[in-house]
Amino acid sequence: MSIRIGIMGYGNLGRGIECAVKQNPDLELKAVFTRRNPENVKILTETAGVYPAADVEKYKNEIDVMIMCGGSATDLPVQTPEIAKLFNVVDSFDTHAKIPAHFANVDRAASESGHLAVISLGWDPGMFSLNRLYANALLPKGRDYTFWGKGVSQGHSDAIRRVKGVKNGKQYTIPVETALEAVRAGKNPELSTGEKHTRECFVVPEEGADQEKIREEIVTMPDYFDEYDTTVNFISQEEFDRNHSGIPHGGFVIRTGKTGWNEEHSHVIEYSLKLDSNPEFTASVIAAYARAVYRLAQEGQTGCKTIFDIAPAYLSPLSGEELRAHLL
Amino acid sequence: MSIRIGIMGYGNLGRGIECAVKQNPDLELKAVFTRRNPENVKILTETAGVYPAADVEKYKNEIDVMIMCGGSATDLPVQTPEIAKLFNVVDSFDTHAKIPAHFANVDRAASESGHLAVISLGWDPGMFSLNRLYANALLPKGRDYTFWGKGVSQGHSDAIRRVKGVKNGKQYTIPVETALEAVRAGKNPELSTGEKHTRECFVVPEEGADQEKIREEIVTMPDYFDEYDTTVNFISQEEFDRNHSGIPHGGFVIRTGKTGWNEEHSHVIEYSLKLDSNPEFTASVIAAYARAVYRLAQEGQTGCKTIFDIAPAYLSPLSGEELRAHLL
Repeated sequence: MSIRIGIMGYGNLGRGIECAVKQNPDLELKAVFTRRNPENVKILTETAGVYPAADVEKYKNEIDVMIMCGGSATDLPVQTPEIAKLFNVVDSFDTHAKIPAHFANVDRAASESGHLAVISLGWDPGMFSLNRLYANALLPKGRDYTFWGKGVSQGHSDAIRRVKGVKNGKQYTIPVETALEAVRAGKNPELSTGEKHTRECFVVPEEGADQEKIREEIVTMPDYFDEYDTTVNFISQEEFDRNHSGIPHGGFVIRTGKTGWNEEHSHVIEYSLKLDSNPEFTASVIAAYARAVYRLAQEGQTGCKTIFDIAPAYLSPLSGEELRAHLL
Repeated sequence: MSIRIGIMGYGNLGRGIECAVKQNPDLELKAVFTRRNPENVKILTETAGVYPAADVEKYKNEIDVMIMCGGSATDLPVQTPEIAKLFNVVDSFDTHAKIPAHFANVDRAASESGHLAVISLGWDPGMFSLNRLYANALLPKGRDYTFWGKGVSQGHSDAIRRVKGVKNGKQYTIPVETALEAVRAGKNPELSTGEKHTRECFVVPEEGADQEKIREEIVTMPDYFDEYDTTVNFISQEEFDRNHSGIPHGGFVIRTGKTGWNEEHSHVIEYSLKLDSNPEFTASVIAAYARAVYRLAQEGQTGCKTIFDIAPAYLSPLSGEELRAHLL
C-alpha cells in the first residue's frame, strides 16, 4: 500500500512535490488543496483531485502525510500548526530566526492531536543544516563556512523588480572563488557574507528608462546590495526569457578542523549542491522526509521534529538489510 | 558526568580515539586494554589506566562504551561479538562484503546481553555510506560515484613492501581529475575503478636492487596494480621519511540525478573529505557515535545498529533547542 500524500498550495514547490511523488513508487498523490478556485488549478497527476483548502478536514482519513507548500512569511506560521491538528505534516519553513517559535507552535498542535510533524525541510534549512551538524560533531575543533550559489535569490530578484524603470529582473548570488579556495586550503579566513559572495543582476529596462539611474539605485540598495560587489547587466526581454527563466541554486557547506593530541592534523569536510531547479530539489528532500514521517507515525511518534531527529534509514525505501548489504 | 570510554587495542586507531576523546569534554578515557604487556604500552592520557585485554570483564562497571580498535581481517569478527556481551560497543569493521554476517553476530551477542552496538563506523564505511543513502533517497533517478584519494592505501603499500628488493614503500591512490569533472558535469560516464583512479608508488630500494625489475613486478601485480595506470618512483630512505610519513586520505561521493515531470532538471550532490590523518578522522567519527551509543543505551535500546539507524541529533553535545536555534 502506498503512502497517501496531500499537497497544500500549488505553486512552484507544490508542482515540485508532485514531480517528486511520481519518482517514488511507494508514494501516491491523493489530493491538492488550493485557496484558488479548484477549477482553475490544473495539475499533472490524473489520479489526484483538486479541492478547496477550506474543505481539507473532509479528507482526514484519505491522506497519510500533508505537505505544506505555502510561503514562510505569512502562510506556514498559521497553516502548519492548523493542519497539524488534522494530519501528519511536513513543511519547508525557512525563516531561520523564527524556527524556535514555529517549532513550539507546531509541536503543541501535533502533540495534542497525536500527529507527527517535521518542519524546515529542504536544503537550507535542511541538508545544509544536517551537514553542519555532522561536521561539527566530527570535528569539534574547527570552523564552519556556508557559501550560496551560483543561484537565483528570489528576495533579491523581487527587490530589483521594485526599482522604478525595471520591467523584469533576476539576481544571481555567486560564491567568490578565491574565498572558497582559501577556506578549502584550511586558511581559516574571517569572511563577511559580502566577501564570500558577489551579486549579478540581469535587468530588462522599461522603454526609455535611465539605465545609469537604475544601476545606481540597485547597487546602493541597503540590506540587499550595498555591502556586495554587484554587477548590473541590461538585457532584452527576449534574452531574459531565453537565458534566465530557470531557478537554479546550490552552494557549499565546508568545515575545516584539527585533530591530534596537539591539533597537528588538518581536515576539510565539504558538502555541495548544484541544482538546476531549486523548488524541485527542495521538493525531493521533502518527499523523502514524508516517507520518514509516515513510518515514524506508524511507530507511534507524535509532536514536532526536525531533520536532526530523523535516523537516515527512515528516508530510504530499502530495508535495513538491503541498506547494509548495498550502501554501507 | 562524563561518558566513560574504553579502548580495546592501542595502534594508530586507538591513539586517534585517545586524541578525539580529549577534544570532547563530555567524553572521558578510563582505560586502554591491550594484548601486549601493559607495562610496554605508553599512552598519552595521564588519568587513564592500561590493562591486559584478558582482564576486561573486571572493568564491566567502569566503562560506558568500549571502542574496538583492532583490525577487520581477524580481530573484530571475533572481538566485537565477545565484547558486546559485556559492554556497549562500537567498531570500524570495514570489510564491505562481510558486514551482513558481522552485523548478525554482533546483534545476537548485544541483544542477548542487553547492550547496544554500532558497527562499521568511520568514513568508508561510515560517512561515505551515509551520504550515499541520503543522496539516493533525495534523487531516486540518478547515479552514484565514489572516488578515493588522494590518500595512502595501506593494503597496496603492504603489497609493495612484499616485493623482493623493496626496503620500504608507500602507495597513493589518486582520483583521475578528468573523470571527476565528467561526473560533476552530469555526463553520467561508465567508469571502472581503474578509470577513476591512478596509483602512485614511492619505493626505497635495497642497495643494489634491480629497479626495473621491481617496477615491472609492481605494475603487473594482479588485483592490486595491473588494471591501473601505476607510476613507481624510487627515492631514498631520507626522502621517504621526510615526505611520506603521514597517512592522508579522503575522497568524493557524488550522486547526479534528474527531477521534473519529464526528468528535465539535473542536480549534483557532492560530499568530499580531505584528511591529513586517516586514523584520526576515523577516530573522530567513532567518538561522536560513542556519544550516540551511550545516549541510546540510556534510553533502553539494545542490539546492533549501523550509522543508518542513528538520528543525527544524538551525535552532538548540544541540546535539541540549541541545535534548532544555531545549526538549523
